[in-house]
Amino acid sequence: MNAPTATRQRLVSTAGDLFRRQGYHATGLSQIVKESGAPRGSLYHFFPGGKEELACAALEASAAQFRAGLLAEMASVDTLEEKVRATFDFVARELETSGFEAGCPVATVTLEASSKSALHAVCAGYFEQWRKFVEGMLVEGGIETKRAVGFSTVMLSAIEGAMLICRARKSTEPLEQVRDALTAMLPKNA
Amino acid sequence: MNAPTATRQRLVSTAGDLFRRQGYHATGLSQIVKESGAPRGSLYHFFPGGKEELACAALEASAAQFRAGLLAEMASVDTLEEKVRATFDFVARELETSGFEAGCPVATVTLEASSKSALHAVCAGYFEQWRKFVEGMLVEGGIETKRAVGFSTVMLSAIEGAMLICRARKSTEPLEQVRDALTAMLPKNA
Repeated sequence: MNAPTATRQRLVSTAGDLFRRQGYHATGLSQIVKESGAPRGSLYHFFPGGKEELACAALEASAAQFRAGLLAEMASVDTLEEKVRATFDFVARELETSGFEAGCPVATVTLEASSKSALHAVCAGYFEQWRKFVEGMLVEGGIETKRAVGFSTVMLSAIEGAMLICRARKSTEPLEQVRDALTAMLPKNA
Repeated sequence: MNAPTATRQRLVSTAGDLFRRQGYHATGLSQIVKESGAPRGSLYHFFPGGKEELACAALEASAAQFRAGLLAEMASVDTLEEKVRATFDFVARELETSGFEAGCPVATVTLEASSKSALHAVCAGYFEQWRKFVEGMLVEGGIETKRAVGFSTVMLSAIEGAMLICRARKSTEPLEQVRDALTAMLPKNA
Protein backbone atom coordinates (compact mmCIF):
# COMPACT_ATOMS: atom_id res chain seq x y z
CA MET A 1 0.00 0.00 0.00
CA ASN A 2 1.46 3.39 -0.87
CA ALA A 3 1.95 6.02 1.83
CA PRO A 4 -1.03 8.30 0.99
CA THR A 5 -3.42 5.32 0.96
CA ALA A 6 -2.06 4.12 4.30
CA THR A 7 -2.48 7.61 5.79
CA ARG A 8 -6.07 7.83 4.56
CA GLN A 9 -6.82 4.38 6.01
CA ARG A 10 -5.32 5.31 9.38
CA LEU A 11 -7.50 8.44 9.52
CA VAL A 12 -10.61 6.43 8.63
CA SER A 13 -10.02 3.60 11.09
CA THR A 14 -9.06 5.94 13.95
CA ALA A 15 -12.17 8.06 13.30
CA GLY A 16 -14.42 4.98 13.15
CA ASP A 17 -13.04 3.61 16.40
CA LEU A 18 -13.37 6.93 18.26
CA PHE A 19 -16.92 7.57 16.96
CA ARG A 20 -18.01 4.11 18.17
CA ARG A 21 -16.37 4.43 21.57
CA GLN A 22 -16.92 8.01 22.60
CA GLY A 23 -19.52 9.26 20.14
CA TYR A 24 -19.58 11.53 17.13
CA HIS A 25 -19.75 14.93 18.86
CA ALA A 26 -17.21 14.10 21.55
CA THR A 27 -14.61 13.25 18.90
CA GLY A 28 -12.77 16.26 17.55
CA LEU A 29 -10.80 16.35 14.31
CA SER A 30 -7.63 17.21 16.21
CA GLN A 31 -7.95 14.02 18.32
CA ILE A 32 -8.40 11.95 15.15
CA VAL A 33 -5.30 13.47 13.56
CA LYS A 34 -3.29 13.01 16.76
CA GLU A 35 -4.29 9.39 17.47
CA SER A 36 -3.91 8.31 13.84
CA GLY A 37 -0.41 9.76 13.68
CA ALA A 38 -1.29 11.28 10.29
CA PRO A 39 0.34 14.53 9.16
CA ARG A 40 -1.77 17.52 10.21
CA GLY A 41 -2.63 18.69 6.68
CA SER A 42 -3.67 15.23 5.49
CA LEU A 43 -7.19 15.36 6.90
CA TYR A 44 -8.40 18.17 4.65
CA HIS A 45 -6.37 16.79 1.79
CA PHE A 46 -8.26 13.48 1.86
CA PHE A 47 -11.53 14.82 3.27
CA PRO A 48 -12.16 18.35 2.01
CA GLY A 49 -15.76 17.98 3.28
CA GLY A 50 -14.40 17.74 6.84
CA LYS A 51 -15.94 15.68 9.65
CA GLU A 52 -19.08 14.61 7.74
CA GLU A 53 -17.07 13.29 4.81
CA LEU A 54 -14.69 11.49 7.16
CA ALA A 55 -17.69 10.02 9.03
CA CYS A 56 -19.11 8.65 5.76
CA ALA A 57 -15.80 6.93 5.01
CA ALA A 58 -15.58 5.61 8.58
CA LEU A 59 -19.11 4.17 8.40
CA GLU A 60 -18.31 2.53 5.06
CA ALA A 61 -15.15 0.93 6.44
CA SER A 62 -16.88 -0.25 9.65
CA ALA A 63 -19.77 -1.74 7.67
CA ALA A 64 -17.41 -3.56 5.28
CA GLN A 65 -15.40 -4.96 8.20
CA PHE A 66 -18.58 -6.05 10.00
CA ARG A 67 -19.93 -7.73 6.86
CA ALA A 68 -16.68 -9.63 6.25
CA GLY A 69 -16.63 -10.85 9.87
CA LEU A 70 -20.25 -11.93 9.75
CA LEU A 71 -19.81 -13.76 6.43
CA ALA A 72 -16.80 -15.63 7.84
CA GLU A 73 -18.95 -16.63 10.84
CA MET A 74 -21.73 -17.85 8.52
CA ALA A 75 -19.36 -20.05 6.54
CA SER A 76 -19.18 -22.56 9.38
CA VAL A 77 -22.94 -23.06 9.93
CA ASP A 78 -25.64 -24.69 7.82
CA THR A 79 -29.21 -24.33 9.01
CA LEU A 80 -31.22 -21.12 9.14
CA GLU A 81 -31.57 -21.38 12.91
CA GLU A 82 -27.79 -21.67 13.25
CA LYS A 83 -27.32 -18.65 10.99
CA VAL A 84 -29.72 -16.52 13.03
CA ARG A 85 -27.95 -17.56 16.24
CA ALA A 86 -24.53 -16.92 14.68
CA THR A 87 -25.58 -13.37 13.75
CA PHE A 88 -26.47 -12.53 17.36
CA ASP A 89 -23.39 -14.30 18.71
CA PHE A 90 -21.10 -12.40 16.35
CA VAL A 91 -22.56 -9.04 17.43
CA ALA A 92 -22.35 -10.04 21.11
CA ARG A 93 -18.70 -11.06 20.77
CA GLU A 94 -17.79 -7.78 19.03
CA LEU A 95 -19.41 -5.83 21.88
CA GLU A 96 -17.78 -7.92 24.59
CA THR A 97 -14.32 -7.73 22.98
CA SER A 98 -14.47 -3.94 23.18
CA GLY A 99 -15.44 -4.04 26.88
CA PHE A 100 -18.94 -2.84 25.86
CA GLU A 101 -17.43 0.42 24.66
CA ALA A 102 -17.88 0.04 20.91
CA GLY A 103 -21.44 -0.44 19.72
CA CYS A 104 -22.98 0.06 16.30
CA PRO A 105 -21.29 3.07 14.65
CA VAL A 106 -24.38 3.72 12.50
CA ALA A 107 -26.59 3.91 15.62
CA THR A 108 -24.24 6.41 17.27
CA VAL A 109 -24.07 8.67 14.22
CA THR A 110 -27.88 8.42 13.73
CA LEU A 111 -28.54 9.66 17.25
CA GLU A 112 -25.94 12.40 17.21
CA ALA A 113 -26.01 13.82 13.70
CA SER A 114 -28.09 16.98 13.33
CA SER A 115 -31.46 16.34 11.73
CA LYS A 116 -30.33 18.46 8.76
CA SER A 117 -27.20 16.37 8.20
CA ALA A 118 -26.73 14.30 5.05
CA LEU A 119 -25.42 11.55 7.34
CA HIS A 120 -28.97 10.42 8.18
CA ALA A 121 -29.60 9.23 4.62
CA VAL A 122 -26.26 7.39 4.69
CA CYS A 123 -27.21 5.69 7.99
CA ALA A 124 -30.65 4.75 6.62
CA GLY A 125 -28.89 3.12 3.65
CA TYR A 126 -26.84 0.86 5.95
CA PHE A 127 -29.88 -0.15 8.01
CA GLU A 128 -31.71 -1.14 4.81
CA GLN A 129 -28.64 -2.98 3.47
CA TRP A 130 -28.46 -5.04 6.70
CA ARG A 131 -32.20 -5.75 6.72
CA LYS A 132 -31.92 -7.02 3.14
CA PHE A 133 -28.97 -9.22 4.16
CA VAL A 134 -31.15 -10.85 6.85
CA GLU A 135 -34.10 -11.10 4.44
CA GLY A 136 -31.86 -12.92 1.93
CA MET A 137 -30.66 -15.32 4.64
CA LEU A 138 -34.29 -16.11 5.58
CA VAL A 139 -35.47 -16.60 1.99
CA GLU A 140 -32.48 -18.85 1.29
CA GLY A 141 -33.51 -20.81 4.39
CA GLY A 142 -36.96 -21.46 2.92
CA ILE A 143 -39.08 -18.63 4.41
CA GLU A 144 -41.56 -17.07 1.98
CA THR A 145 -40.62 -13.51 0.97
CA LYS A 146 -43.47 -11.65 2.70
CA ARG A 147 -42.73 -13.25 6.07
CA ALA A 148 -39.00 -12.83 5.53
CA VAL A 149 -39.48 -9.07 5.05
CA GLY A 150 -41.44 -8.78 8.32
CA PHE A 151 -39.10 -11.02 10.30
CA SER A 152 -35.97 -9.27 8.99
CA THR A 153 -37.37 -5.89 10.08
CA VAL A 154 -38.00 -7.24 13.58
CA MET A 155 -34.62 -8.98 13.73
CA LEU A 156 -32.55 -5.96 12.64
CA SER A 157 -34.45 -3.61 14.98
CA ALA A 158 -34.12 -6.06 17.87
CA ILE A 159 -30.36 -6.45 17.30
CA GLU A 160 -29.87 -2.67 17.28
CA GLY A 161 -32.01 -2.23 20.40
CA ALA A 162 -30.44 -5.16 22.24
CA MET A 163 -26.93 -3.77 21.54
CA LEU A 164 -27.99 -0.56 23.28
CA ILE A 165 -29.33 -2.45 26.29
CA CYS A 166 -26.17 -4.60 26.40
CA ARG A 167 -24.04 -1.45 26.53
CA ALA A 168 -26.10 -0.04 29.40
CA ARG A 169 -25.92 -3.33 31.31
CA LYS A 170 -22.34 -4.18 30.27
CA SER A 171 -23.54 -7.71 29.60
CA THR A 172 -24.31 -9.74 26.47
CA GLU A 173 -27.39 -11.23 28.16
CA PRO A 174 -29.97 -9.02 26.36
CA LEU A 175 -28.62 -10.14 22.96
CA GLU A 176 -28.70 -13.78 24.10
CA GLN A 177 -32.28 -13.46 25.36
CA VAL A 178 -33.44 -11.82 22.12
CA ARG A 179 -31.56 -14.50 20.12
CA ASP A 180 -33.30 -17.34 21.97
CA ALA A 181 -36.76 -15.75 21.85
CA LEU A 182 -36.51 -14.79 18.15
CA THR A 183 -35.11 -18.18 17.13
CA ALA A 184 -38.17 -19.78 18.74
CA MET A 185 -40.39 -17.43 16.69
CA LEU A 186 -38.79 -18.29 13.32
CA PRO A 187 -41.55 -19.04 10.78
CA LYS A 188 -42.01 -22.80 10.63
CA ASN A 189 -41.95 -23.23 6.85
CA ALA A 190 -38.17 -23.16 7.00
CA MET B 1 -45.60 25.41 42.78
CA ASN B 2 -43.08 27.60 44.60
CA ALA B 3 -40.39 29.45 42.68
CA PRO B 4 -37.40 27.18 43.47
CA THR B 5 -39.38 24.07 42.45
CA ALA B 6 -40.42 25.76 39.21
CA THR B 7 -36.80 26.72 38.47
CA ARG B 8 -35.62 23.15 39.10
CA GLN B 9 -38.34 21.80 36.82
CA ARG B 10 -37.43 24.22 34.03
CA LEU B 11 -33.79 23.14 34.23
CA VAL B 12 -34.79 19.46 34.12
CA SER B 13 -37.22 19.75 31.22
CA THR B 14 -34.90 21.97 29.16
CA ALA B 15 -32.01 19.54 29.74
CA GLY B 16 -34.18 16.55 28.82
CA ASP B 17 -35.36 18.16 25.62
CA LEU B 18 -31.86 19.23 24.54
CA PHE B 19 -30.33 15.82 25.35
CA ARG B 20 -32.99 14.08 23.22
CA ARG B 21 -32.67 16.46 20.28
CA GLN B 22 -28.98 17.21 20.00
CA GLY B 23 -27.37 14.59 22.22
CA TYR B 24 -25.74 14.50 25.64
CA HIS B 25 -22.23 15.71 24.71
CA ALA B 26 -23.39 18.44 22.35
CA THR B 27 -25.48 20.01 25.13
CA GLY B 28 -23.50 22.29 27.40
CA LEU B 29 -24.58 23.40 30.85
CA SER B 30 -24.50 27.04 29.73
CA GLN B 31 -27.02 26.32 26.96
CA ILE B 32 -29.32 24.57 29.46
CA VAL B 33 -29.16 27.54 31.84
CA LYS B 34 -29.73 30.02 29.00
CA GLU B 35 -32.66 28.21 27.34
CA SER B 36 -34.38 27.42 30.64
CA GLY B 37 -34.21 31.06 31.70
CA ALA B 38 -33.04 29.90 35.14
CA PRO B 39 -30.73 32.10 37.24
CA ARG B 40 -27.09 31.24 36.53
CA GLY B 41 -26.28 29.98 40.03
CA SER B 42 -29.35 27.74 40.25
CA LEU B 43 -27.87 24.81 38.34
CA TYR B 44 -25.21 23.98 40.94
CA HIS B 45 -27.62 24.82 43.73
CA PHE B 46 -30.06 22.13 42.60
CA PHE B 47 -27.53 19.79 41.00
CA PRO B 48 -24.24 19.92 42.90
CA GLY B 49 -23.23 16.76 40.98
CA GLY B 50 -23.32 18.76 37.73
CA LYS B 51 -24.28 17.38 34.33
CA GLU B 52 -24.56 13.73 35.40
CA GLU B 53 -26.91 14.55 38.25
CA LEU B 54 -28.99 16.78 35.98
CA ALA B 55 -29.08 13.99 33.36
CA CYS B 56 -30.42 11.54 35.97
CA ALA B 57 -33.23 13.95 36.84
CA ALA B 58 -33.95 14.60 33.15
CA LEU B 59 -34.17 10.85 32.41
CA GLU B 60 -36.49 10.37 35.39
CA ALA B 61 -38.79 13.16 34.21
CA SER B 62 -38.80 11.95 30.59
CA ALA B 63 -39.56 8.38 31.68
CA ALA B 64 -42.41 9.52 33.94
CA GLN B 65 -43.91 11.64 31.15
CA PHE B 66 -43.58 8.78 28.67
CA ARG B 67 -45.21 6.33 31.09
CA ALA B 68 -48.15 8.67 31.77
CA GLY B 69 -48.71 9.19 28.04
CA LEU B 70 -48.55 5.47 27.31
CA LEU B 71 -50.94 4.60 30.17
CA ALA B 72 -53.43 7.19 28.88
CA GLU B 73 -53.17 5.58 25.42
CA MET B 74 -53.76 2.11 26.94
CA ALA B 75 -56.92 3.23 28.73
CA SER B 76 -58.84 3.31 25.45
CA VAL B 77 -57.99 -0.20 24.21
CA ASP B 78 -58.97 -3.67 25.42
CA THR B 79 -57.27 -6.62 23.78
CA LEU B 80 -53.60 -7.53 24.05
CA GLU B 81 -53.13 -7.08 20.31
CA GLU B 82 -54.57 -3.56 20.53
CA LYS B 83 -52.28 -2.77 23.46
CA VAL B 84 -49.18 -3.93 21.58
CA ARG B 85 -50.22 -1.86 18.55
CA ALA B 86 -50.98 1.16 20.75
CA THR B 87 -47.50 1.00 22.28
CA PHE B 88 -45.84 1.22 18.85
CA ASP B 89 -48.27 3.89 17.65
CA PHE B 90 -47.63 6.04 20.72
CA VAL B 91 -43.85 5.89 20.20
CA ALA B 92 -44.26 6.63 16.48
CA ARG B 93 -46.46 9.66 17.18
CA GLU B 94 -43.99 11.05 19.72
CA LEU B 95 -41.19 10.75 17.16
CA GLU B 96 -43.23 12.28 14.35
CA THR B 97 -44.43 15.19 16.52
CA SER B 98 -40.82 16.18 17.15
CA GLY B 99 -40.01 16.10 13.42
CA PHE B 100 -37.91 12.95 14.10
CA GLU B 101 -35.56 15.02 16.23
CA ALA B 102 -36.39 13.65 19.68
CA GLY B 103 -35.86 9.93 20.14
CA CYS B 104 -35.45 7.85 23.27
CA PRO B 105 -33.48 9.91 25.82
CA VAL B 106 -32.21 6.75 27.51
CA ALA B 107 -30.80 5.45 24.21
CA THR B 108 -28.97 8.72 23.58
CA VAL B 109 -27.43 8.84 27.04
CA THR B 110 -26.49 5.12 26.85
CA LEU B 111 -24.53 5.64 23.62
CA GLU B 112 -22.84 8.84 24.71
CA ALA B 113 -22.08 8.39 28.38
CA SER B 114 -18.54 7.28 29.12
CA SER B 115 -18.28 3.61 29.97
CA LYS B 116 -17.15 4.60 33.46
CA SER B 117 -20.21 6.78 34.05
CA ALA B 118 -22.81 5.90 36.67
CA LEU B 119 -25.42 6.84 34.07
CA HIS B 120 -25.18 3.41 32.43
CA ALA B 121 -26.66 1.69 35.48
CA VAL B 122 -29.44 4.28 35.54
CA CYS B 123 -30.18 3.64 31.83
CA ALA B 124 -30.16 -0.13 32.38
CA GLY B 125 -32.72 0.38 35.15
CA TYR B 126 -35.14 2.15 32.76
CA PHE B 127 -34.73 -0.50 30.06
CA GLU B 128 -35.59 -3.20 32.61
CA GLN B 129 -38.52 -1.18 33.97
CA TRP B 130 -39.95 -0.88 30.44
CA ARG B 131 -39.39 -4.58 29.66
CA LYS B 132 -41.25 -5.47 32.86
CA PHE B 133 -44.08 -3.12 31.86
CA VAL B 134 -44.45 -5.02 28.55
CA GLU B 135 -44.11 -8.38 30.34
CA GLY B 136 -46.95 -7.38 32.69
CA MET B 137 -49.14 -6.36 29.75
CA LEU B 138 -48.53 -9.74 28.08
CA VAL B 139 -49.18 -11.78 31.23
CA GLU B 140 -52.37 -9.82 31.87
CA GLY B 141 -53.34 -10.66 28.28
CA GLY B 142 -53.05 -14.38 29.02
CA ILE B 143 -49.50 -15.21 27.87
CA GLU B 144 -47.61 -17.61 30.16
CA THR B 145 -44.78 -15.94 32.07
CA LYS B 146 -41.84 -17.66 30.37
CA ARG B 147 -43.01 -16.69 26.89
CA ALA B 148 -43.93 -13.21 28.11
CA VAL B 149 -40.36 -12.67 29.33
CA GLY B 150 -38.93 -13.68 25.93
CA PHE B 151 -41.44 -11.70 23.91
CA SER B 152 -41.07 -8.57 26.06
CA THR B 153 -37.28 -8.66 25.56
CA VAL B 154 -37.75 -8.84 21.79
CA MET B 155 -40.46 -6.16 21.81
CA LEU B 156 -38.51 -3.61 23.87
CA SER B 157 -35.32 -4.18 21.84
CA ALA B 158 -37.24 -3.92 18.57
CA ILE B 159 -38.92 -0.67 19.65
CA GLU B 160 -35.56 0.87 20.58
CA GLY B 161 -33.95 -0.29 17.34
CA ALA B 162 -36.90 0.75 15.16
CA MET B 163 -36.85 4.25 16.72
CA LEU B 164 -33.24 4.58 15.61
CA ILE B 165 -34.07 3.47 12.07
CA CYS B 166 -37.09 5.82 11.99
CA ARG B 167 -34.83 8.74 12.91
CA ALA B 168 -32.38 7.86 10.16
CA ARG B 169 -35.19 7.52 7.60
CA LYS B 170 -37.32 10.37 8.99
CA SER B 171 -40.33 8.09 8.65
CA THR B 172 -42.48 6.09 11.07
CA GLU B 173 -42.58 3.18 8.61
CA PRO B 174 -39.97 1.00 10.41
CA LEU B 175 -42.00 1.18 13.65
CA GLU B 176 -45.18 0.31 11.74
CA GLN B 177 -43.51 -2.65 10.01
CA VAL B 178 -42.13 -3.99 13.31
CA ARG B 179 -45.56 -3.46 14.93
CA ASP B 180 -47.34 -5.49 12.23
CA ALA B 181 -44.75 -8.27 12.13
CA LEU B 182 -44.54 -8.59 15.93
CA THR B 183 -48.30 -8.50 16.41
CA ALA B 184 -48.54 -11.45 13.99
CA MET B 185 -45.96 -13.30 16.13
CA LEU B 186 -47.83 -12.82 19.44
CA PRO B 187 -48.04 -16.17 21.26
CA LYS B 188 -51.41 -17.71 20.49
CA ASN B 189 -52.41 -18.68 24.04
CA ALA B 190 -53.63 -15.11 24.56
